[in-house]
Amino acid sequence: MTTIVHEGLNGIVAAETRLSMVDGERGRLVIGGFRVEELAEWPFERTVSLLWETAGFTGTPKALPLPERTRTLLHNAAAERVPVMDALRMAASTLQAEDDAEAALVLAGSFPTIVASYWRILHGLEPLPPRAHLGLAANYLYMLTGDEPHPELVRGTETYLNTVIDHGLNASTFTARVIASTGSDLVSAITGAIGALKGPLHGGAPGPALDMVFEIGDAERAEEILRRTIETGERLMGFGHRVYKVRDPRADVLAAAAERMFKRAGDMQLYELARAVEDTALRLLEEHKPGRRLQTNVEFYTALLLHGLGLEVPLFTPTFAIGRVAGWIAHCFEQRTVGKIIRPESVYVGVMP
Amino acid sequence: MTTIVHEGLNGIVAAETRLSMVDGERGRLVIGGFRVEELAEWPFERTVSLLWETAGFTGTPKALPLPERTRTLLHNAAAERVPVMDALRMAASTLQAEDDAEAALVLAGSFPTIVASYWRILHGLEPLPPRAHLGLAANYLYMLTGDEPHPELVRGTETYLNTVIDHGLNASTFTARVIASTGSDLVSAITGAIGALKGPLHGGAPGPALDMVFEIGDAERAEEILRRTIETGERLMGFGHRVYKVRDPRADVLAAAAERMFKRAGDMQLYELARAVEDTALRLLEEHKPGRRLQTNVEFYTALLLHGLGLEVPLFTPTFAIGRVAGWIAHCFEQRTVGKIIRPESVYVGVMP
Repeated sequence: MTTIVHEGLNGIVAAETRLSMVDGERGRLVIGGFRVEELAEWPFERTVSLLWETAGFTGTPKALPLPERTRTLLHNAAAERVPVMDALRMAASTLQAEDDAEAALVLAGSFPTIVASYWRILHGLEPLPPRAHLGLAANYLYMLTGDEPHPELVRGTETYLNTVIDHGLNASTFTARVIASTGSDLVSAITGAIGALKGPLHGGAPGPALDMVFEIGDAERAEEILRRTIETGERLMGFGHRVYKVRDPRADVLAAAAERMFKRAGDMQLYELARAVEDTALRLLEEHKPGRRLQTNVEFYTALLLHGLGLEVPLFTPTFAIGRVAGWIAHCFEQRTVGKIIRPESVYVGVMP
Repeated sequence: MTTIVHEGLNGIVAAETRLSMVDGERGRLVIGGFRVEELAEWPFERTVSLLWETAGFTGTPKALPLPERTRTLLHNAAAERVPVMDALRMAASTLQAEDDAEAALVLAGSFPTIVASYWRILHGLEPLPPRAHLGLAANYLYMLTGDEPHPELVRGTETYLNTVIDHGLNASTFTARVIASTGSDLVSAITGAIGALKGPLHGGAPGPALDMVFEIGDAERAEEILRRTIETGERLMGFGHRVYKVRDPRADVLAAAAERMFKRAGDMQLYELARAVEDTALRLLEEHKPGRRLQTNVEFYTALLLHGLGLEVPLFTPTFAIGRVAGWIAHCFEQRTVGKIIRPESVYVGVMP
């Protein structure tokens, strides 16, 4: 009998979940019983509470100040120019809580503070504590810039955070569930998940898609540059998704939010360039890879939206984490109810004694 | 069609490995082509190099001093009486390396320093930097106590570290591989693995087995107390293993090393009590659960050996981590050669919009 090795666990169903449904064939994403289009403009806290409640936990996170040891660590990490995602992993790992309930609030409430504080320290500015009357998204923007943000910027940020809050068993969510399945604490599970999110194969890293748009720079150069990229066999960043065979349902939500941000700023140039690049890319992909049904993915519009919100590229993945941590936490709660350790097997192919 | 949900991924083979073979039916453990009995008394560095080389990486770790930010963090964590495993996770997460090769050496070389430094700080002592002429095990004991250890204590420690260095796809090793599979860095993967090792369902936590022996205290009370424990349906700590159906091959190796440590110290009382407890427990288990073939597991003798080495119970799991980290790192190297993200699927059982 030959052993079947499922190297990527592709097609293996490892969990039942009430949290989200990714329907790649039909382009649907359901989060806690709502279509992503429905909850995209909710206050982020409402989506978080919905997801947590779906997993059996009642609570709403508030942005929190950081413990002394975490602040000290961020200063020391900044002195070494540690990348933001590493600093987030370092800082999250220093958090502590008595139980899962406290950990959920501490983790979700500390992520915006960690990222914003670290960003300010990196730029030679004093970190700011959160303000009690602001929600997570508003506090994040406030702690980054020092200015209380316009409600439209807050809504744009919340649209992004809601859109990425959960997405089935991706690798970081799965990591969180594996760690939680040992009975370990939520800080450990979430720290592990940050480590997985960092990986370039994880997906959801919108930086490269934006880089491509900047590189093209002018709509008239789009066809030439994109055609050369496709012909040399390189992947077009921002197009195609492992799961979605049709348009990613998050794309339109994010595109609309991005358009609002650029309109608000009164400069549509980058937005229009991006749309032109998209049209050209889709046409060339259909021409070169007919039937592959390659679509614009969520990274493309994420990049535009986050740029429109005034966030720089090194903040893109950390901002993703600020949204996704709420999903990770919900999955940990759900995993608790399974009460079974996740432990696959390996087959030995090495030397025998 | 009903979807099969593999909640614990039980029986699913997720990796081919050249690192270790756990043969639970026949009680065999092969590590890098050697039976565990063969390499048990090797210098730990030799086993580490063997395992890393098996995964394609040539290198030998040396105990390393800690970066400033890590030392500061440990002092701050000790002020809050953070448990040792949490402090290890926090400290490991602060490490940095340019590439996998450097990360392997930094991680394996820093674990003994982190654990010993933190232990000393917790006890109001100044942490000590490692000494260049000592190996990992000797440095660990030196950095804990301030005295260069007797070679027999070093050998006892190395026997333990060699014995636990790798053990198939346990939950912490699997965690490391999932994180590494995203293309993320080794510090992230190992930090996640520490989080999984912390969990009470992970196994390998030898504290409770020793607690039971202490609680019994006198061989003459063993039968009465153990019988009561079994009859109330409680699990006997130190007996039975998820995988091994016969005697865990590591048990005899560890028992022999433990016996040597107690003989050396000139006090066999606890050792003899433990052996008496073991005999009674095995007899009662066979009587109450005939055919279950419950055997003494590795935790039972680990507890005795580590106690014989002079280590206190809160150091047991961190010492396990000092050995296992080398295995985690080897698995990360092996995972790199697969180059495929580990990402199972979930099935949605929640509310539909």
